[in-house]
Amino acid sequence: MRVCIVGFGLIGASLAWQLKAKGHVVVGVARRESTLEAAKSHKLIDESYLEICQLALSVDLVVIALPLELILPALVLVEKFLKGPTVVIDVGSVKSKIVEEAKALKLKKALFVGCHPMAGSDKSGIEHFQTGLFVGKPFLVCYPDLNVRVKTITQIQTFVKEIESRYIEISADEHDREVATISHLPYIVANALFGLYLKDKEKLKQIASTGFFDTTRVAHSDPMWGMMVSMMNDTALIDRIDEFIVALQALRCDILTNDPLALFERLNVDNVDQDPRKMQLVKKWVRDYHTKL
Amino acid sequence: MRVCIVGFGLIGASLAWQLKAKGHVVVGVARRESTLEAAKSHKLIDESYLEICQLALSVDLVVIALPLELILPALVLVEKFLKGPTVVIDVGSVKSKIVEEAKALKLKKALFVGCHPMAGSDKSGIEHFQTGLFVGKPFLVCYPDLNVRVKTITQIQTFVKEIESRYIEISADEHDREVATISHLPYIVANALFGLYLKDKEKLKQIASTGFFDTTRVAHSDPMWGMMVSMMNDTALIDRIDEFIVALQALRCDILTNDPLALFERLNVDNVDQDPRKMQLVKKWVRDYHTKL
Repeated sequence: MRVCIVGFGLIGASLAWQLKAKGHVVVGVARRESTLEAAKSHKLIDESYLEICQLALSVDLVVIALPLELILPALVLVEKFLKGPTVVIDVGSVKSKIVEEAKALKLKKALFVGCHPMAGSDKSGIEHFQTGLFVGKPFLVCYPDLNVRVKTITQIQTFVKEIESRYIEISADEHDREVATISHLPYIVANALFGLYLKDKEKLKQIASTGFFDTTRVAHSDPMWGMMVSMMNDTALIDRIDEFIVALQALRCDILTNDPLALFERLNVDNVDQDPRKMQLVKKWVRDYHTKL
Repeated sequence: MRVCIVGFGLIGASLAWQLKAKGHVVVGVARRESTLEAAKSHKLIDESYLEICQLALSVDLVVIALPLELILPALVLVEKFLKGPTVVIDVGSVKSKIVEEAKALKLKKALFVGCHPMAGSDKSGIEHFQTGLFVGKPFLVCYPDLNVRVKTITQIQTFVKEIESRYIEISADEHDREVATISHLPYIVANALFGLYLKDKEKLKQIASTGFFDTTRVAHSDPMWGMMVSMMNDTALIDRIDEFIVALQALRCDILTNDPLALFERLNVDNVDQDPRKMQLVKKWVRDYHTKL
């Protein structure tokens, strides 16, 4: 396979590594010479170009691995320089708006399919590229409509197999709702938590431990990424924030109304009530607690 | 040093390991024979007792490493069997109620000091004990009043030094407020997040990745622990939940009112606005975004 990767941040560079490891040819496009030099020194690319051009795009597949705001402008340039029909994918973490706007462009040569590898890091940039970043991870594929060619599907499936990810087809809307729950909402929540910590940092940094820093790790993702996904996935994200606040209020209410048993049941996400000894302990504690009140 | 540890869960057993590694004598008390057998097989104890008794308590320091609800009953038993004045500490993660109730007991021999090592795991039980669990971690110490004897302070400082933790004195009230922010609130938040995931688990488990599981790892702590700390640290925790919801609503409002620049500033917890190139990108995106609206 001959693959052109546009953009060599963490995702682009890690994809290149995986493809090179499988013996494929990687054509690299990046705006800065220093990025291409770094890619070459890590043996991530076979050919390099500073711009999207005809020469760079004589490939089997184009991967636009750019930040969200640059995907559509890059897609327009890709269309301009492609010789014939070629599958073009992106790796952005919002899909509805990207897929819809790409469709509205009515491209002739670029067969655009929205993609989203569920792998990453709070670090960004080529210097943080990881070997095996995509191994075993879900790779979500959002086709723009039902008229997608079998050849396009096969090509994407082959690509996903070569980077050793798990191929999952999903509609763009469903993608955005699900990713709001497992990625965008946790990011917003981690940020709000870390914000409380910052308000009292001088004291709290003395005592904060691994649990806190694990929970808030994603808060350190690039705030520009966070801003863009939040604005571009606004509907699903606001729905999820509201649903989350309702869940939090329910826990708060159990505490405020002195109902430890209800609280236990809500906190028991792993269903330890299968364990009768545990439940006896809980009930005894609750009995003693109410006696003390 | 000759130290009696009452309770051999994750914390008790990991403390025993650390003390033994430094050549101290550890006297172990646990309710179940199998626990003591496990402690012996891991070479965590020198002497073992199934009950708190006079023989077990002829030591320099007693550590009550039991779940929150068992600390005070154990303290009463310890007082009964102590020969003379001895420093007794606990390791529970709520301090005001424990320290107050211990004071109200007006003990003669047990010189009780509330303690809280900021180390742990979502796993519990002796089988999960960790070597070096406390190394470099904060060890919070809440003295019951200002009349504490110098000898007591020295003894606790020595103990903390031997387990290689960082000794930090703090008032019980302040402890509870700070721990609400960095431990109890993140736990409640992780639970609410994991609850949303569970509601749609069949779909979401296909795509959830490390970011999500890191953020929600603490949700898998023992729900009985979660119930007890929430009920015993209710005032500080409810305050923090309310403050957290306000922070979340502010982020939600930025998204709803289409204000990406305000959102960026709020998400920018690591102050990347020191970087002028980044801020240019952000402002350009915001301009383009508003043009598109």
